[in-house]
Amino acid sequence: MRVIGFDPGLRRTGWGVVDVTGSKLAHVANGCCESGEGDLALRLARLHREIERVIETFAPDCAAVEHTFVNKDAAGTLKLGQARAISLLVPAQRGIPVAEYAPNAVKKAVVGVGHAEKAQIQHMVRMLLPGVHFGSADAADALAIAICHAWSAGAGARLGAALERRA
Amino acid sequence: MRVIGFDPGLRRTGWGVVDVTGSKLAHVANGCCESGEGDLALRLARLHREIERVIETFAPDCAAVEHTFVNKDAAGTLKLGQARAISLLVPAQRGIPVAEYAPNAVKKAVVGVGHAEKAQIQHMVRMLLPGVHFGSADAADALAIAICHAWSAGAGARLGAALERRA
Repeated sequence: MRVIGFDPGLRRTGWGVVDVTGSKLAHVANGCCESGEGDLALRLARLHREIERVIETFAPDCAAVEHTFVNKDAAGTLKLGQARAISLLVPAQRGIPVAEYAPNAVKKAVVGVGHAEKAQIQHMVRMLLPGVHFGSADAADALAIAICHAWSAGAGARLGAALERRA
Repeated sequence: MRVIGFDPGLRRTGWGVVDVTGSKLAHVANGCCESGEGDLALRLARLHREIERVIETFAPDCAAVEHTFVNKDAAGTLKLGQARAISLLVPAQRGIPVAEYAPNAVKKAVVGVGHAEKAQIQHMVRMLLPGVHFGSADAADALAIAICHAWSAGAGARLGAALERRA
């Protein structure tokens, strides 16, 4: 199963692709989509094109998007919501199922605790995906989201299989 | 010039189309796009398809989207941002220029004051577009946004022409 994770942001949306076979993880690719300069509508259209290109290139089976914690800065939250819509929309337009995870769930899945620092997450991503290189913290976060989903989906499938065996 | 206005919302996005010739306005159509039930990603994809269908049907020359005032409910603001992205994205993907207006600017353009009630706006929309029927407050708001843009864009063009004549 191939999973793409997204860490959405209006200026820059991080993405990371991993392959999961049973409980084995393998890094495929990671990077950032940038919305550039100009009017908001044009920036969203650019982000849509860039994310579309990544999805077409790596053909993931499922997607996971961080459900970023909403803070007290309403203008920032509105911007984030606008960027987030694009990460949710592009896979859904191609029939790819999209899961959402709260940042704490991602941290707990990858580091083991819900209040981990960025450096800890990056360290664990490097441990779990040996040889990985990421150009930015956003891409590392996106890989962590993909890992979280790979494990959640894998655990769900294993649980389903175990229950079937019991039935 | 044909203008489409959007009043974005995740559950329901109102839209309204008007034609403007000089300072004359004419109602073309109005309605609501619904995102339905289900996962957020699927709802955004449905909203995208519905708005796409409206734009293809009425072929507007330009679009205007309300820059809704951000309130203190962060979860609501995030949802609104996600819905707003779709109204901005669809016209931009077709090369249609998209303008943004704050609610107060729309009210001031249509009613004359920035703190008008919904009922006043609907009354003025009915006065300005004789014979218009709208099924919902969202569609009426969307028509008000389209009118606001028709006048702003028209005023800009008239000012440009006047300055050219002076030069």
